[in-house]
Amino acid sequence: MARVVVDVMLKPEILDPQGQAVQRALPRLGFDGIAIAEVRQGKRFELEVDGPVDDAALTRIQELADTFLANTVIEDFTVKVEPS
Amino acid sequence: MARVVVDVMLKPEILDPQGQAVQRALPRLGFDGIAIAEVRQGKRFELEVDGPVDDAALTRIQELADTFLANTVIEDFTVKVEPS
Repeated sequence: MARVVVDVMLKPEILDPQGQAVQRALPRLGFDGIAIAEVRQGKRFELEVDGPVDDAALTRIQELADTFLANTVIEDFTVKVEPS
Repeated sequence: MARVVVDVMLKPEILDPQGQAVQRALPRLGFDGIAIAEVRQGKRFELEVDGPVDDAALTRIQELADTFLANTVIEDFTVKVEPS
């Protein structure tokens, strides 16, 4: 059993109101000691794959992320195999 | 400028309907070639920190994640500094 992680984030040029809301809330919550210039919020998918994650499986997962998990008009994604 | 990533996932014992919906949709979408045993969906926060990320800054970000980004009753989180 291997774990493949797909991270989906809004493209840098797309406005991220959720991230902005988090960032603006920081001083109000007392987190004004560290200078956080930007916060962006995205999605993380953890896929538990039965069997080995070979190139064919990774290609399928790339397709899956590209067509289904991410909206590639506004989002970028990365696929990573996590060491188990 | 350094990037700190906070990943927030539902605890393993908490039902994840979003992840289940993704998993159940896979065969319907033609992704039946690879056996994906489980899908879990969570959140990823990217914090752009001005200045160095020292132990004090990391401790503050841990507190931030613990009190604000994650609901630790039902969610686990990890904090990672990304190499820039």
